[in-house]
Amino acid sequence: MGKTTLDPRLKEPNSAMQDHLGYQLTHWGQDHARLKQPISAQIMNRAGIPHGGLYATLLDTAMGFSGCFTGDPAQKSIALTLTLNVNFLSQPTGAWLYAEATVTGGGKSTFFAEGSILDENGRLIAHGTGAFQRRQG
Amino acid sequence: MGKTTLDPRLKEPNSAMQDHLGYQLTHWGQDHARLKQPISAQIMNRAGIPHGGLYATLLDTAMGFSGCFTGDPAQKSIALTLTLNVNFLSQPTGAWLYAEATVTGGGKSTFFAEGSILDENGRLIAHGTGAFQRRQG
Amino acid sequence: MGKTTLDPRLKEPNSAMQDHLGYQLTHWGQDHARLKQPISAQIMNRAGIPHGGLYATLLDTAMGFSGCFTGDPAQKSIALTLTLNVNFLSQPTGAWLYAEATVTGGGKSTFFAEGSILDENGRLIAHGTGAFQRRQG
Amino acid sequence: MGKTTLDPRLKEPNSAMQDHLGYQLTHWGQDHARLKQPISAQIMNRAGIPHGGLYATLLDTAMGFSGCFTGDPAQKSIALTLTLNVNFLSQPTGAWLYAEATVTGGGKSTFFAEGSILDENGRLIAHGTGAFQRRQG
Repeated sequence: MGKTTLDPRLKEPNSAMQDHLGYQLTHWGQDHARLKQPISAQIMNRAGIPHGGLYATLLDTAMGFSGCFTGDPAQKSIALTLTLNVNFLSQPTGAWLYAEATVTGGGKSTFFAEGSILDENGRLIAHGTGAFQRRQG
Repeated sequence: MGKTTLDPRLKEPNSAMQDHLGYQLTHWGQDHARLKQPISAQIMNRAGIPHGGLYATLLDTAMGFSGCFTGDPAQKSIALTLTLNVNFLSQPTGAWLYAEATVTGGGKSTFFAEGSILDENGRLIAHGTGAFQRRQG
Repeated sequence: MGKTTLDPRLKEPNSAMQDHLGYQLTHWGQDHARLKQPISAQIMNRAGIPHGGLYATLLDTAMGFSGCFTGDPAQKSIALTLTLNVNFLSQPTGAWLYAEATVTGGGKSTFFAEGSILDENGRLIAHGTGAFQRRQG
Repeated sequence: MGKTTLDPRLKEPNSAMQDHLGYQLTHWGQDHARLKQPISAQIMNRAGIPHGGLYATLLDTAMGFSGCFTGDPAQKSIALTLTLNVNFLSQPTGAWLYAEATVTGGGKSTFFAEGSILDENGRLIAHGTGAFQRRQG
């Protein structure tokens, strides 16, 4: 799942938050996207486990990308999140987290997506859904 | 709202994520908590505005703290987030974000909370709710 | 809270679902609305308590109305729910449920609202938030 | 999808809400459940389309059942909903709605589920997730 299948022509400059947390876009196609994120020391909460906000960030990002694919680097589409819902199911093992997101519906101005956070062993760690508004970048 | 009213005896060591993003706990009492977070360059998303995941992180953190107050540093209570829901209402102006959270219900093992993100001008930027499980730290 | 303050000129014909479940609109003003619903035998779930879907229905309805007030019966505004989130906090006592909703943000095409279900004793039974799209009726 | 595969020994008496709205349990197995609901006149909202609260009710019910399967009619398990989140994607055509739900995670006391509402043409109408607490019936 961590294998990168991202068309290099579609690669954008990293966002600041992306660089700061360390996630990378590894796949981006029509209605879906994947990210990977190292389970680094800096993402831990006061219980010593990955912060729930990190999962929310990865799900928000992956779902947003899933609905913004145009296939044309000159035509940038941006998603503004309207609502984000995350269920926290389990704790990860291993060194990496994978976020995978898919568009589930919507139209020209609004789309819905769902996404999952898996760990290296394929265990479902968190599951999210969201509603997004499309903007021209 | 940004004034710190945190009893210094209750101050815990910062979590890693807290240090990494830069938020501070400014108030912690029975059933409520407040945080402040600088709108720094590193929290921006690909649209150049604060990442929705940051709001989710602040809301998750503030709501978690709101249900974990014991008033006794020796008796640490920890919240595991079950679900988190965030509505993204507006874009902030100014240099700081404030997160304020309150417990809305629940019992011994589970609690519910709601929280708001405000900017320096008191504008409501994001609103969240969550369900949490209590653990002894 | 159950007192009706609805301007009679704004009263619409009941919807089918409204008649079927039995709720009534008791207040409707700019950015807020209130409903009341009898705790009747027909709304009970397999555990013998009011069905969570009833609370969701009342919250969805009250929040939708809260963002659709025009003050002019000739100018009907309709809300399509994009997302609805409900937290179930407690069980009611007494014979009536009250739903109260308020718009929290948004713009011309989309609005956000939050709402609460209270019982006759003022106890908070359920709390919800939602995102809605406005349509001309 | 509407075909009934419910073991007749597992059939419980209908709940009041179930009779009132008209849905039927058509499948119930380990970690999944299916319902069907006629698109009857009585479920319409003020816009003349099925009330969002109906989708919420069906999703809540199907997800609750999905986590309560014991296979033994003498050992009844009941789910109390903690939180319910619904995304409203599309409008149905045809005469029936189908709700399908699956457990996504959790443990002894709490479980998570997701569910979909489809119409007769297999179109995704609404999608939901929830967190539930288990109780012995």
